[in-house]
Amino acid sequence: MRLSCVSYLCYMKIAIIGSGNVAYHLAKAFTENNIPVSQIFGRNENDLKEISEELSVPYSFENLIDAELYIIAVNDNSIGEVSKKIENKNCLVAHTSGSVSRDTLVGNYRKSVFYPLQTFTKSKKLDYSKIPFFIEAENEDNLEVLKNLASKISKNVMEADSEKRKYIHLTAVFACNFVNHLYARAKEISDSQNIPFDYFLPLIDETTQKIHEIEPKSAQTGPAIRNDERVLKIHESLLTDEEQIKIYKTMNESIKKMYVKDRSPKTEDGSLHSES
Amino acid sequence: MRLSCVSYLCYMKIAIIGSGNVAYHLAKAFTENNIPVSQIFGRNENDLKEISEELSVPYSFENLIDAELYIIAVNDNSIGEVSKKIENKNCLVAHTSGSVSRDTLVGNYRKSVFYPLQTFTKSKKLDYSKIPFFIEAENEDNLEVLKNLASKISKNVMEADSEKRKYIHLTAVFACNFVNHLYARAKEISDSQNIPFDYFLPLIDETTQKIHEIEPKSAQTGPAIRNDERVLKIHESLLTDEEQIKIYKTMNESIKKMYVKDRSPKTEDGSLHSES
Repeated sequence: MRLSCVSYLCYMKIAIIGSGNVAYHLAKAFTENNIPVSQIFGRNENDLKEISEELSVPYSFENLIDAELYIIAVNDNSIGEVSKKIENKNCLVAHTSGSVSRDTLVGNYRKSVFYPLQTFTKSKKLDYSKIPFFIEAENEDNLEVLKNLASKISKNVMEADSEKRKYIHLTAVFACNFVNHLYARAKEISDSQNIPFDYFLPLIDETTQKIHEIEPKSAQTGPAIRNDERVLKIHESLLTDEEQIKIYKTMNESIKKMYVKDRSPKTEDGSLHSES
Repeated sequence: MRLSCVSYLCYMKIAIIGSGNVAYHLAKAFTENNIPVSQIFGRNENDLKEISEELSVPYSFENLIDAELYIIAVNDNSIGEVSKKIENKNCLVAHTSGSVSRDTLVGNYRKSVFYPLQTFTKSKKLDYSKIPFFIEAENEDNLEVLKNLASKISKNVMEADSEKRKYIHLTAVFACNFVNHLYARAKEISDSQNIPFDYFLPLIDETTQKIHEIEPKSAQTGPAIRNDERVLKIHESLLTDEEQIKIYKTMNESIKKMYVKDRSPKTEDGSLHSES
């Protein structure tokens, strides 16, 4: 049955609504894995045309086709409005958002969520097989269809209800959005001294690489975990931007509090390198 | 002259003081690049023995040899004390710290800094050729010797005085230490909901990968830059840990302030994926 479900995907009419980064990458992931996309539908004709030409997928900005599965890949605030365009009742509709509940979809169809946990940029190639997909559906059959579909793209497909999805999204905000903002603030500091930010890329790469092997809590280094007040004071005296100072203080306080129970005189580890 | 300096490195007696992560990786980087290390010296016999056996470098925890170059790779607070052990006056001494000034070294020798910008873990292999080395010395000759030495290991060797080094270190704290702490806090959140942290690794990798090609400021995504108060409120309601809440608010405020000048109604980009 599982097998027939999978081959069924080849005959299922799929329409993707949206022409942004997520819509583009989903359309690409489908076509690369021999899952035909019957239409991409959106407002921006230029974007649609570009995707259509690259992936050989028909597009429209006027007439949404009758499909069996609609995947809505638009921004959170538009999902409800866009979902009203779907008049077909005998279909499955999925949005792709981490922080919108399933019942934001408005219509007499079966509602679901098809959430890929990744940050998408149109110009950047992605290895789709590594992207985790989180699925939510009304019933077991719909769940099975979406799981099979996602499994054709990725090795990591899981069920997650709206509540769990919120926490996944929140975790991603810490591990992705906030991390990127730290890079942006770090670059402000190095730019101010004419130090090329490229010098920091090997360190940044290694920091990320490390947590593939070591728990982030165990990988922590730096002046705050060493309780090195001398360095902390020097750094504070160098910072002049109010937001940089707030981040500096908040992060150091948080680091100190995380390790306060573990702290002993031996924490002053001679092997710790000062920069890290 | 440059050439003779480089070949001179093969005959220069080098001692490394310390047996931690930095000492180990420097000793390894030297020996891998055919620069003989005459001794590693430190307090911890077990660590010294282990390094000595792996790299075939003599060690001692009692008698520091007479060398032409001593590289002190111990923790910041011990540099001054350790440097007093060097009695040889006709030598060059370098510490490896990002946040300690050159004159922390105490003795009648020539003082310098040999600062590798990387986070070192003993068990993790590193591509030494990518590590930036920042050099500071008393005079041009010493600078040349250390630059040549670093150039045998790495493609990125630069001069940086103590003032510049402080900013390099501060930037590294934002881009490495704080980033790792965000990973640790993110993992707390996912752990609390039994969501495997491994699911976030492709997203984390892509976030870091991205800034090799795109300025971090331009790569920013997420609810704060979209001014998505609905999602920001949901997230705040999910967080219960005081430090997590402080980080959440501080980072979002900082993101909002960074983009406030750029903001226009068009910032609400339909192509932005909610998670990112």
